[in-house]
Amino acid sequence: MRRLEVLAVEGLPEVHPGDDLAQLIASHASLVDGDVVVVAQKVVSKAEGRFRRLSEVTASAEAERIAPLLIAAPDPRFVQIVLDESVRVVRSERILITETRHGFVSANGGVDHSNVPGDDVVTLLPEDPDASARRLCERLRELAGVNVGVVISDTFGRPWRLGIVNVALGLAGVPAVRDLRGTFDDAGKSLHATVLAVADDLAAAAGLVMGKTNRAPVVVVRGFDGVGETGAGRDVVRPAGEDLFR
Amino acid sequence: MRRLEVLAVEGLPEVHPGDDLAQLIASHASLVDGDVVVVAQKVVSKAEGRFRRLSEVTASAEAERIAPLLIAAPDPRFVQIVLDESVRVVRSERILITETRHGFVSANGGVDHSNVPGDDVVTLLPEDPDASARRLCERLRELAGVNVGVVISDTFGRPWRLGIVNVALGLAGVPAVRDLRGTFDDAGKSLHATVLAVADDLAAAAGLVMGKTNRAPVVVVRGFDGVGETGAGRDVVRPAGEDLFR
Repeated sequence: MRRLEVLAVEGLPEVHPGDDLAQLIASHASLVDGDVVVVAQKVVSKAEGRFRRLSEVTASAEAERIAPLLIAAPDPRFVQIVLDESVRVVRSERILITETRHGFVSANGGVDHSNVPGDDVVTLLPEDPDASARRLCERLRELAGVNVGVVISDTFGRPWRLGIVNVALGLAGVPAVRDLRGTFDDAGKSLHATVLAVADDLAAAAGLVMGKTNRAPVVVVRGFDGVGETGAGRDVVRPAGEDLFR
Repeated sequence: MRRLEVLAVEGLPEVHPGDDLAQLIASHASLVDGDVVVVAQKVVSKAEGRFRRLSEVTASAEAERIAPLLIAAPDPRFVQIVLDESVRVVRSERILITETRHGFVSANGGVDHSNVPGDDVVTLLPEDPDASARRLCERLRELAGVNVGVVISDTFGRPWRLGIVNVALGLAGVPAVRDLRGTFDDAGKSLHATVLAVADDLAAAAGLVMGKTNRAPVVVVRGFDGVGETGAGRDVVRPAGEDLFR
């Protein structure tokens, strides 16, 4: 693989619950065989109606306790929604980092109030991002008549490094990782610990043109040589038992 | 920014200490204004002669204690070299994670024996990756007569997520992050916590074509709109006092 293109899909309208997102994408992008379609989680969640309203939530004592510990001093009902989406609190000093039901460790459990109107509504991560990716992928293949892969991405912070990067939450038709263990490097040595997180690399590459404010929530990566391989966003989650920082 | 290309630089020879890496790159790539040249740390370290020999190292008691705790059961002298490159051990169960003198938290402190011949020699990270990037950048601009940016990249593992991704160790002529705090999203809401790690995104995008075994240690990202901005790899290191996982 010697050359990739990373292309923003232009002119997509605002997405609403029940919209046929694949149809919107297929009608705004000229997809070709082997394309990877990277879709921001936010629009998938909007299409799937993954919203909650703060006004319909009652904060627990735990949410009331955590909220004032956080820099952003969020509404305790916001914290409650994060807790509802999470199986475990990883950190609740300054920022709230939790493990979601999917196993993702991220700020606010993927609950977010950016890019939705008003102060009452927040978006949640898709219920099952891999299933969302598979549905999108099948429908895109049907509509565009070409073999594509799908990555549903979101921006996550990282320990040790500043800033957020786009990572892969859900996948279809692309590998999660490339396991090079047992292959040999250019000096003929066996590679012991080389598992490349290619789906996250695809997401990060797309993140460069996605921006945050320029309404480019769908990006095509053209030239990737792994479309048709199988993978799942779940495969990128490090098993808790092997995780030194959970 | 609507379209990026990610291009492997083909045909580079094996790099040796003292080689003029910028000259090698300029003679194998047709650089244009605005290109970002992403260079794998390994070839920078080779050009700079950043090697050590296990046979010239004596393991301390600490290195002898740590080595058998690690899955790879490395030579204690390898552990000693890692400790010499590090200011602090972050984890030493199964894998050795340290904080390097630069502030990077990574496996084995960036010490590596892949892609170098024999069992005795290991490579170290560049002494000052930002300075290496600046030198490369200036010389590339001189040789190619165009305005380019440089990212020196390496593959790092992450907590919580499997696999390694390419990140930026040193930079010149490109921003480390894009700070969108205070700007507004498409719903008109102020973005509070949105600092995009663009240099890491550039590195990850390059990582897709770099591979590990196909000798493509230099990749050009064309179409990025930030060349000429200033940044440093050091700027991506989260200050220890703000880090919840150090």
